[in-house]
Amino acid sequence: MIYLDNAATGGFKPDCVITAAAAALATAANPGRSGHKLSLACMERVYSTRNLLSDFFGGYGYERVVFTKNCTEALNIAILSLPADSKIITTVAEHNSVLRPLEHLKKLGAEVEYIPLNDDGDIDLNALKRAVGSAPPRAAVITLASNVTGTAPDIALVKKILPADCLLICDGAQACGHVPVDMRALGIDALAVAGHKGMLGIQGSGALLFSERFNPQPITYGGTGSESYNLDMPDFYPDKLESGTLNFPAIVSLAEGAIYLKQHLGEHRAAVENFTARTIENLKKTENVCVFSKPNPYGIVSFRLNNMQSEMVAYALSEEFGICVRGGLHCAPLIHRALGSDGLVRASFSAFTPPSAVESFTAAVGALSLRKA
Amino acid sequence: MIYLDNAATGGFKPDCVITAAAAALATAANPGRSGHKLSLACMERVYSTRNLLSDFFGGYGYERVVFTKNCTEALNIAILSLPADSKIITTVAEHNSVLRPLEHLKKLGAEVEYIPLNDDGDIDLNALKRAVGSAPPRAAVITLASNVTGTAPDIALVKKILPADCLLICDGAQACGHVPVDMRALGIDALAVAGHKGMLGIQGSGALLFSERFNPQPITYGGTGSESYNLDMPDFYPDKLESGTLNFPAIVSLAEGAIYLKQHLGEHRAAVENFTARTIENLKKTENVCVFSKPNPYGIVSFRLNNMQSEMVAYALSEEFGICVRGGLHCAPLIHRALGSDGLVRASFSAFTPPSAVESFTAAVGALSLRKA
Repeated sequence: MIYLDNAATGGFKPDCVITAAAAALATAANPGRSGHKLSLACMERVYSTRNLLSDFFGGYGYERVVFTKNCTEALNIAILSLPADSKIITTVAEHNSVLRPLEHLKKLGAEVEYIPLNDDGDIDLNALKRAVGSAPPRAAVITLASNVTGTAPDIALVKKILPADCLLICDGAQACGHVPVDMRALGIDALAVAGHKGMLGIQGSGALLFSERFNPQPITYGGTGSESYNLDMPDFYPDKLESGTLNFPAIVSLAEGAIYLKQHLGEHRAAVENFTARTIENLKKTENVCVFSKPNPYGIVSFRLNNMQSEMVAYALSEEFGICVRGGLHCAPLIHRALGSDGLVRASFSAFTPPSAVESFTAAVGALSLRKA
Repeated sequence: MIYLDNAATGGFKPDCVITAAAAALATAANPGRSGHKLSLACMERVYSTRNLLSDFFGGYGYERVVFTKNCTEALNIAILSLPADSKIITTVAEHNSVLRPLEHLKKLGAEVEYIPLNDDGDIDLNALKRAVGSAPPRAAVITLASNVTGTAPDIALVKKILPADCLLICDGAQACGHVPVDMRALGIDALAVAGHKGMLGIQGSGALLFSERFNPQPITYGGTGSESYNLDMPDFYPDKLESGTLNFPAIVSLAEGAIYLKQHLGEHRAAVENFTARTIENLKKTENVCVFSKPNPYGIVSFRLNNMQSEMVAYALSEEFGICVRGGLHCAPLIHRALGSDGLVRASFSAFTPPSAVESFTAAVGALSLRKA
């Protein structure tokens, strides 16, 4: 099989990640729950991972790094912490992990304004200026890279447009691990991280990092191993946002992924940009193909075949060519509407994709492009 | 090290669990997100695990089994689904994973009544009758076994006392995998399952099973891979309660644990009951020791040393004897208050504990019991 669905779940993890996570499965004491040596050893690893991630993302120290089961949970903690009377700005490029919690907040009274795309398929910054001008938003929730097209807004420009007191919440699902993300340099107040994609961790890993001016509230309540006499959640981070047993193997995998990326992010980025550029070049020469991506470091190439529905293309690629891609809406319905698409084929590369996959893939698409509608 | 902290996290997993989970780390396609062969293979495994757990717990079919990151998340989904004007009955034996979400609901307007212990340290069923009589409760939230003492209420008797329309929500953190739990036979409407303890799965695994008359609401919102055009969560289970990428390795580990337990639960139970009985017998002969547990199938033995604080006992056992136990409140403050304790030492066994651990442990406690206060 040629696995080109890395934007859904990274299909290859470095040995250091697999080895550490597999060892953690077998160790399995409970970090933060007991005072014996095994539990304390796990706890120390958890805290060193908080520091590691805070450094990796230009964050605000270990207290402001909480572990979540996926990026969606991290986004929910951040978004559902916004008061129900907030005006919130977001974009049509967002994933349902942003759209659905925002639409839930809307039912509770929030005003949610969607920024459209411009003619280039980027976020329309003039529309953002107008949205900010009409009434100041409490928060903006913006993806660092579209999971559909691999298009990324210029966050520095976005930040300049937002009022100084507007919280900037970023969905890092597709960006983290692919490009450097520095919360302090970019003025990001909350960064939601997926562990199992660019960060090279395992499924079940994720994190939310947040600034000193944003104080997220719990969405779950339970044991923290701290202040056990207290029937409320402890009023300090990270405990306030972490109920129940932590997923130690997942946390270890995130640490190993981040350590690996400190060495390799630059070369990964170059490899992935090269894959997308070559794929797009080939697809543009292919009959019946309309490409929606530009070369990008997120590994994403989306396109339409005029003669076949996107899910049918994905199915045929899997069944006939052993190639894994994703068709359909990719859990991001509004950007499809904005692009005039009712579904695209998305191939997503990682630095571990074999280089010959580009040619195998585009040749297979070429064969399908000639089929009768 | 002798690991007697299995009630925090199970310290030993069968080979089948570790092998399957480690393999799943490396496979790592995204179940339910794409239509290619690898994703579909993961998806089939996820659905077969839903069916397996539904059978294992006498549940209500695969739609009514949702995967959570831990038992706490499962309890939060169930409890936070109760309307804010509910009267809810619970017990002083509950863990903070029940107490803290209930106290949160109380702030939103719910009435929460705590049932005390009787003189035997069991749930006081006469007090339960009185609580039900004063005003009919919408729900009762009751642990199947105390994580502090290993005491378990007779759920069949509890069920008889509750009005027919009262939802019965059970915390199965310490019971599942240790004794058979049959939701239909016992009339349980929601069962919260910890994956990483008696069920022999890995950290990051957990589940909520629920009956046909209980319709839990989401606490997070996000991509489900279904109805992606819909900005609300899909209005069907399990999708409605599962946002974001599922933790495939954790789900696989739960499946393997349940398959293993189908064969071995009886012998596990006998082994664990034997460990607790022998430990309690030895401790009762030890000076300065006051035991709070009776022999039980959950592997839990809690006690006080009159001459040493519980955390100091746990620390000394770890440092001087290489034995891992847990001191303190075990995230269950109200049962300690009810027992007149300000902290207990808890040793917790599993079927994989070496039999000689009982003697090593009780001899170490004997040595500590003679120290000057």
